[in-house]
Amino acid sequence: MEKDQYIVGIDFGTLSVRSSVIRVRDGFERGTAVSEYKHQVMDQNLTASENEPLPPDFALQNPTDYIESLIESVNQAVKDSGVVVKHIIGIGVDFTSPTVLATNSMGVPLCNFPEFKNRPHAYAKLWKHHAADDQAKRLLKEAQDRKEDWLSFYGGGLSAENTVCKIMETYEKDREIYDQATNFVNAVDWIVWQLTDQLIFSSADTGFKKNYQNGKYPSYDYLESVSKGFGNMYKEKMNAPIQAIGTEAGKLSKVMAEKLGLYPEISVAVGLNDGHVTPAAVKAVRPGILSAILGTSGCYFINSEKFKEVPGMLGIVYEGVVENLWCFEAGQTSFGDTFAWFTKNFVPSEYQEEAKKLNLNLHEYLTRKCSTQKIGQHGLIALDWNNGNRSILCDASLSGLLIGHTLTTKPEDIYRALMEACAFGARKIIETMNQYELEINEIVVAGGMLKNKFFMQMLSDITKLPISITKSNAIGALGSAIYGAVAAGCYPNITTASDAMGNKVPNVFKPNEEKAAAYDLLYEQYTALYTLFGEKQPEIMHQLKKIQKNSTLTINNNN
Amino acid sequence: MEKDQYIVGIDFGTLSVRSSVIRVRDGFERGTAVSEYKHQVMDQNLTASENEPLPPDFALQNPTDYIESLIESVNQAVKDSGVVVKHIIGIGVDFTSPTVLATNSMGVPLCNFPEFKNRPHAYAKLWKHHAADDQAKRLLKEAQDRKEDWLSFYGGGLSAENTVCKIMETYEKDREIYDQATNFVNAVDWIVWQLTDQLIFSSADTGFKKNYQNGKYPSYDYLESVSKGFGNMYKEKMNAPIQAIGTEAGKLSKVMAEKLGLYPEISVAVGLNDGHVTPAAVKAVRPGILSAILGTSGCYFINSEKFKEVPGMLGIVYEGVVENLWCFEAGQTSFGDTFAWFTKNFVPSEYQEEAKKLNLNLHEYLTRKCSTQKIGQHGLIALDWNNGNRSILCDASLSGLLIGHTLTTKPEDIYRALMEACAFGARKIIETMNQYELEINEIVVAGGMLKNKFFMQMLSDITKLPISITKSNAIGALGSAIYGAVAAGCYPNITTASDAMGNKVPNVFKPNEEKAAAYDLLYEQYTALYTLFGEKQPEIMHQLKKIQKNSTLTINNNN
Repeated sequence: MEKDQYIVGIDFGTLSVRSSVIRVRDGFERGTAVSEYKHQVMDQNLTASENEPLPPDFALQNPTDYIESLIESVNQAVKDSGVVVKHIIGIGVDFTSPTVLATNSMGVPLCNFPEFKNRPHAYAKLWKHHAADDQAKRLLKEAQDRKEDWLSFYGGGLSAENTVCKIMETYEKDREIYDQATNFVNAVDWIVWQLTDQLIFSSADTGFKKNYQNGKYPSYDYLESVSKGFGNMYKEKMNAPIQAIGTEAGKLSKVMAEKLGLYPEISVAVGLNDGHVTPAAVKAVRPGILSAILGTSGCYFINSEKFKEVPGMLGIVYEGVVENLWCFEAGQTSFGDTFAWFTKNFVPSEYQEEAKKLNLNLHEYLTRKCSTQKIGQHGLIALDWNNGNRSILCDASLSGLLIGHTLTTKPEDIYRALMEACAFGARKIIETMNQYELEINEIVVAGGMLKNKFFMQMLSDITKLPISITKSNAIGALGSAIYGAVAAGCYPNITTASDAMGNKVPNVFKPNEEKAAAYDLLYEQYTALYTLFGEKQPEIMHQLKKIQKNSTLTINNNN
Repeated sequence: MEKDQYIVGIDFGTLSVRSSVIRVRDGFERGTAVSEYKHQVMDQNLTASENEPLPPDFALQNPTDYIESLIESVNQAVKDSGVVVKHIIGIGVDFTSPTVLATNSMGVPLCNFPEFKNRPHAYAKLWKHHAADDQAKRLLKEAQDRKEDWLSFYGGGLSAENTVCKIMETYEKDREIYDQATNFVNAVDWIVWQLTDQLIFSSADTGFKKNYQNGKYPSYDYLESVSKGFGNMYKEKMNAPIQAIGTEAGKLSKVMAEKLGLYPEISVAVGLNDGHVTPAAVKAVRPGILSAILGTSGCYFINSEKFKEVPGMLGIVYEGVVENLWCFEAGQTSFGDTFAWFTKNFVPSEYQEEAKKLNLNLHEYLTRKCSTQKIGQHGLIALDWNNGNRSILCDASLSGLLIGHTLTTKPEDIYRALMEACAFGARKIIETMNQYELEINEIVVAGGMLKNKFFMQMLSDITKLPISITKSNAIGALGSAIYGAVAAGCYPNITTASDAMGNKVPNVFKPNEEKAAAYDLLYEQYTALYTLFGEKQPEIMHQLKKIQKNSTLTINNNN
């Protein structure tokens, strides 16, 4: 007879949602299912009006897809788990963020109304919708000029992805949609609204993505001075109570319970951003433990009792991840995608053939080739800025650098230099945190880079820290379930829940002193270049971007 | 009935010798033949003692090969030409330099004696023999400390290839060979010695390769203080009259005439270094015309009435190429080899397949792909230092740099950036010359890069100079014949002979003003990086070389 209780953890990603049925006692995954969004990402045209191309940098989604995939994945996960439904006592959820929706007062997305189905701004603007770049620049400039006090919580930066930028874009590009929208709501809160019929803003998401700090949003005067008439946006369009993560947002509505095949009135937790549930999932919420999600890009979280104005953070949010602690989030804009780029473009056919013979993919093959080298033998330093630098420099106009190559430099040399660059970039983030009294004693790594053991050892050697790993393949759903379990009252707090339910294999990689010392010599040169191009003379890379941008204007027939 | 007279031009390269029968009247090539050296380059072991490996950086040749190939190629060229032998009235010759031989007083190389056949230092040390690096460093250091006045004629540098370094290496590594050698003689003079039984030093080679300036060699005191007992080397081992280029060194000996199938007593000209005969061959001996040999590396010559202490030159030699003028030689250590390196290592199989389909080689394919880009569109700058920088910085410890790449950078982008880097490097040399009042109005290009018309136009746009080309495929033999014709009295001077016999198609590429202006923006960034890494902070690249060198000492098992 089943005595255990379960939580459904739901993880809304960019292309699909995963639901897992997680055992409260120990975090064991009893069942899981993934459902892809029907329309995926709309970046060329709206599915509703296929012949009208979208402007550049648009990335939209249809919120109906979220609900359909939610229903499909939860039903399947429960079925997969074999768990009796009455033992499922709560729901936790995370979502890509900021993914922004314009809705009416009942939470119905405006794109659902026939009269707006051809209007791009009526759809969900996915986190990576980058068309609000102009708005972001003007908002940032004004914030800098006015020395807005919230700026320092975001490393002095304001990304075009930010909620306010996307809303201001709607305000300036499609005023009717803006006016018709009773609410602008991030998807993470919208999905909870759908589940509970309650509109509650997640304290974490509101801190990380909506510039809410010290108990207030950015001011009327500030917004009004950037775009006339926009000053009351927060007051008029984002008026909802903010509630702490790990608490219950409401009960599952009868209508949704039926669709999901769950009991009504079970607990639904306040939502979190995807990625942000990782520290809890990998037992890394306590101070001193850095969680690192190393996939396409690199994402870091550390919690601390003290507030420190650490430069270059993506966000510094009180109780951003766990109660009573400040959460510091940092990021490397390019990580695994650098290696994907290199193997796709710069590996000759001999290597491809040889790798095939050995039954290795190119990553494994290049790693094997370079792993026998002595440290520094390739004579190279690379910078990890192929997609700009977020932490610590907050400069998207920085770009890649490779130095030291000669006529004997081989692909595996550069591949290794790129790995080192990523690890050096991580060390730079850690050192900056250390400078601001955020001690770090351990790194817990999740994400695709875990596959590369040689890299993991290198990261340990370069950061001089022990590295723990996770074996969970559905870290988002697990993390969401942990918050769901706390909200449902199964644990007194997030830390306890994380300790019991999280998935971590401790100290799998330990720094080798000798190697660490050898890498120090290279890191010194990395730092010299980092300082040179990131701080002393950023104008060189900036100028190249500018020339590149203007080059489209050059009349030039090269024949 | 044949009225024309002919000269045999002989061009000793690294792996073979080419002889051409050239018509005095107009430089027309009536016949030509190439003969490869039997033992090519000995860099692993001596053919005479196959089981004993040579030390690293050795590059030796067997002088007997030179004679055998000389005989074969001249006989075949004459046969190929169909010219009646009595109409061949002279010989001109050039040779790789400094290729250094130790001989007895009759000119017999010591390696020809059975007792020395297993002794590496008894063989010809080919120009690219680099084992005298330690000697070069000590000789340079002492010269700098003593402010030796000849230094400034060589850009303040002293290469390990230099004659005196190779001889000092023999002095320190195999004293017996040094003691037994009556003469150390560069191959260019040795071959003339073999032809004429006269030991005459070429004024040009002596100036360019033996540090002979202002009527003297480096001093006894200087040499003695670098290596005790070595002070009298010039006096004892390099004692021969120096004679101007374009003059007759002697008459062809009876013995050699018979072997070559030529008439005895015909004129043999003073020899020149290979490459150095190019300006005459492409009608570029007059002031204002820069000749550029753009092959594996880049080599530049300009002649001027004025002596100027231009920094970074490989050599500044009075009458180094033509009478009454100072010759300035500059060099880029890596040119075509950079593109060979890139296509060999960094082009993916899709490109290779596509190129094959289009029946293009990878150079043609990448050039075609990048040639449609706007200037600056790739966002990149590269430095042309993959093999160090000779002119202007004289720093072999500099290395490659690539900046500005992102995750969308493609192989053709980098290929184009490398082309631009080579052209920018050429412009840097030209601008330096200009600063020292060496005016340049035209570039005449010879060498393998001529195949790439897109690059040639780019070079014209970037340097803002018209580019002439040569259509001769045997520029060395033609150039040698021109000097031979002057020595034989057919022309009053080298300029006249070059005008009549040289091969040049004028102004094939002309700078496009609009493109030139667009390239200027990139050149500004190139210059910023050139200054940064070449002058202000060369220690970054130096340090990487040092780390690389020391890395072999690191105990490091990367498993």
